[in-house]
Amino acid sequence: MAKNITARAENFPQWYQDVIAAGELADHSPVKGCMVIRPTGYAIWEAMQATLDRTFKETGHVNAYFPLLIPESFITKEAEHVEGFAPELAVVTHAGGKELEENLVIRPTSETIIGHMYAKWIKSYRDLPLLINQWANVMRWELRTRLFLRTTEFLWQEGHTAHETYEEAQGETLKMLQVYQDFLQEVCAIPVIAGAKPEHEKFPGARDTYTVEALMQDNKALQIATSHNLGQNFAKAFEIKYLSRDNQLEYAWTTSWGCTTRMIGGVIMVHGDDDGLIIPPKLAPTQVVIVPIFKRAEEREQVYEHAEKIKAKLGQVLGKLRVSLDSRDDLRPSDKFFHWVQRGVPLRIEVGPMDVKKQSGMTVRRDNRAKEPVSLEVMAERIPAILAEIQAGLYQTALDRREAHSVQVESYAEFKEVLAQGGGLIYAHWDGTRETAQQIQEETKATIRCIPTHVPAEEGVCMISGKPSEQRVLFAQSY
Amino acid sequence: MAKNITARAENFPQWYQDVIAAGELADHSPVKGCMVIRPTGYAIWEAMQATLDRTFKETGHVNAYFPLLIPESFITKEAEHVEGFAPELAVVTHAGGKELEENLVIRPTSETIIGHMYAKWIKSYRDLPLLINQWANVMRWELRTRLFLRTTEFLWQEGHTAHETYEEAQGETLKMLQVYQDFLQEVCAIPVIAGAKPEHEKFPGARDTYTVEALMQDNKALQIATSHNLGQNFAKAFEIKYLSRDNQLEYAWTTSWGCTTRMIGGVIMVHGDDDGLIIPPKLAPTQVVIVPIFKRAEEREQVYEHAEKIKAKLGQVLGKLRVSLDSRDDLRPSDKFFHWVQRGVPLRIEVGPMDVKKQSGMTVRRDNRAKEPVSLEVMAERIPAILAEIQAGLYQTALDRREAHSVQVESYAEFKEVLAQGGGLIYAHWDGTRETAQQIQEETKATIRCIPTHVPAEEGVCMISGKPSEQRVLFAQSY
Repeated sequence: MAKNITARAENFPQWYQDVIAAGELADHSPVKGCMVIRPTGYAIWEAMQATLDRTFKETGHVNAYFPLLIPESFITKEAEHVEGFAPELAVVTHAGGKELEENLVIRPTSETIIGHMYAKWIKSYRDLPLLINQWANVMRWELRTRLFLRTTEFLWQEGHTAHETYEEAQGETLKMLQVYQDFLQEVCAIPVIAGAKPEHEKFPGARDTYTVEALMQDNKALQIATSHNLGQNFAKAFEIKYLSRDNQLEYAWTTSWGCTTRMIGGVIMVHGDDDGLIIPPKLAPTQVVIVPIFKRAEEREQVYEHAEKIKAKLGQVLGKLRVSLDSRDDLRPSDKFFHWVQRGVPLRIEVGPMDVKKQSGMTVRRDNRAKEPVSLEVMAERIPAILAEIQAGLYQTALDRREAHSVQVESYAEFKEVLAQGGGLIYAHWDGTRETAQQIQEETKATIRCIPTHVPAEEGVCMISGKPSEQRVLFAQSY
Repeated sequence: MAKNITARAENFPQWYQDVIAAGELADHSPVKGCMVIRPTGYAIWEAMQATLDRTFKETGHVNAYFPLLIPESFITKEAEHVEGFAPELAVVTHAGGKELEENLVIRPTSETIIGHMYAKWIKSYRDLPLLINQWANVMRWELRTRLFLRTTEFLWQEGHTAHETYEEAQGETLKMLQVYQDFLQEVCAIPVIAGAKPEHEKFPGARDTYTVEALMQDNKALQIATSHNLGQNFAKAFEIKYLSRDNQLEYAWTTSWGCTTRMIGGVIMVHGDDDGLIIPPKLAPTQVVIVPIFKRAEEREQVYEHAEKIKAKLGQVLGKLRVSLDSRDDLRPSDKFFHWVQRGVPLRIEVGPMDVKKQSGMTVRRDNRAKEPVSLEVMAERIPAILAEIQAGLYQTALDRREAHSVQVESYAEFKEVLAQGGGLIYAHWDGTRETAQQIQEETKATIRCIPTHVPAEEGVCMISGKPSEQRVLFAQSY
């Protein structure tokens, strides 16, 4: 067991901090609540970006860049939007040595400034749909912050689209929710539950907000990505109008959708173990690390030669594996193992004089520590297969854990009992009112994570008010 | 000639604005001096990023992300640094509904906050060299702004490295200057002159600043990228110390280097013509556009089928060409030509019923309008060859223009005469003092762009003071 990492069972929040420190993923900065994303952590973000960006482009989106600073008056144009974001704004009042005529806020999200530009660019139905994404930093002044999960500044992508009809905007909203779901499940190996947010948990200014939620190992839920159908709310606030096919001036229908560096926190909390980070192979910046082992100096050359041969072989695999050879001669093999275990690299190949002789390497899986000698001959087939097994195994383990901690309850007493026993995902009937949701939150800290898409309609009564309910919703304590 | 673009000869600054508007590269934003980079412009930035990022990684660098906001007190720790940047800072005084205890500035550059973190991370020579790059937005409150060339907010990359010795830091500084030079010349087809900045034009806080400078079509110079040997200045200001191989506590030697979205302005002003943008093939997000042409509806199917065949063929070329098929049925072919000409796509292939019959396509070069029919049979070889000719031709044209507008002068009278005749790059002797440089700048608006590396030592006398000079330096009016 790693001595620099607290056990999960002992103190989960401390374990989380320790994993980040041990893996050198991120660090606290001198500005309260702002983090530094260190190279190991940033490489995970780059891997996430690469896959998502390709998918966004394949689904017809293009990237652009809008200004960091937004006139304060823009934020106030959409009533719910200002109510939601005003308390979290960072405000620039002085620049170039002078007080500004109008304060500028650092974007907490860009619907307003993008809406302003869309009003300028969109004239006719021929300009629609407009499908733009932006990779950017945003700032929301949070009081309680946690590396990756909730930081004052964070990195994200925000898609902003404009359409001719409600139906088309709704289609886009759900399509991008599906993109997030597929990415999280297939690449990050995180099983997620998709659904709509209740009215009182919507994005400020949205008509409907959809979310994907995942269960962490401490049985809390994490909202990982959201997709919003903004209706005509922002189009009306920013005068985004177009001449329709019927030659009428109409307001456009817009959407926005985003995911953030918070996903890295999700990967840590879903897959990590008491030795630290575990990165799913499809996401891992380094999928395989080769560690040469030798005692006598004269063995060095042949061991390295063999290690290089393995590296070259794996580099030629279709789709190219991402392989590193740890050639630091000032570290002992055990220190190297420790180094890569804590960085979450899914597979290690140990190469010593015996392996040279046998023309093989000893593979060691990060997830379950299983060892398997693999001969050079079959390496190009076997290593990708082992990585696929790890990928599938991580997903299945997370799914099994989630199923084991998902329950249906019929009464509020039962609901509270589940939370007292350690929590998890709780499916219960709710009367649809903000008041009931608030009472539950105040008394139990659990909130409605979403009205899940996969849950069938079912007549029932609210566990608090006894009023009728048409479907169970998903409750959990959350980040 | 494009009616929406002013001729270069008539009004170069207006031509520049018109090219950007016609190509939909960028737009002014409601925040003074901040630009919106539109999808066509952003795709060029993404292409620049992709190539540079790969090169940075190949030269041993890793990416990370540091906070946008910097405590105001950090900026003041390095005396020259604060003097240089204080007038341009945007300042956050309020956040989360409260006045901050200490003002935070939006990073104008990140030496200070990165220096603070390096002091925390670097303990021993084993932690060196530390080679980190960051892709980010920065803000400098400029009074006179111009899209891409000088904007309040801009996108850039900033490399920050720490080393054991002066020599190693100097090696890194020059290596990255060479990376910029190679990228600009080989990918952007922009010939550049590398050299050192004179003392009074150095980056605030640097020991030595190096630059690459290019000549625009209006005979003004543009500084395109810089690389700084920071000596131990920031190490001393931020206490970046390491235990040396001799077990002594030493200050590290640091460097920084960066290039920005300004490069897009350089591409426009070096290659553009009176019809708009021309993007060098190696940089172009779309290298080839296929435009189907037919008059009768019954020709549509076979023309599109043939166009798709060409697209598929070019998509299989080694290294994969980036090809678009313009299938908008509501636009006439001439409108499509116009659209792609103004977006700078280097090669167009027109495909009509006759081309279907001949199993060929008519290629039209963006740079010189040369037409050449190319049969499907040889397309996979001939199209890449034409693109290579365009790439080489753009570079040669720019180089010829630069050579035609480069002169050596022996006297200040001659110097002023060259500027009166339209300017260009002027090589002249200078006594090395700030006073002389200032006098020249005040009287002619020309500045010392650099002390070029390629100019041999040569005994001479300063054209103003008559004092001795050891080498000619490069003067020009500039952006």
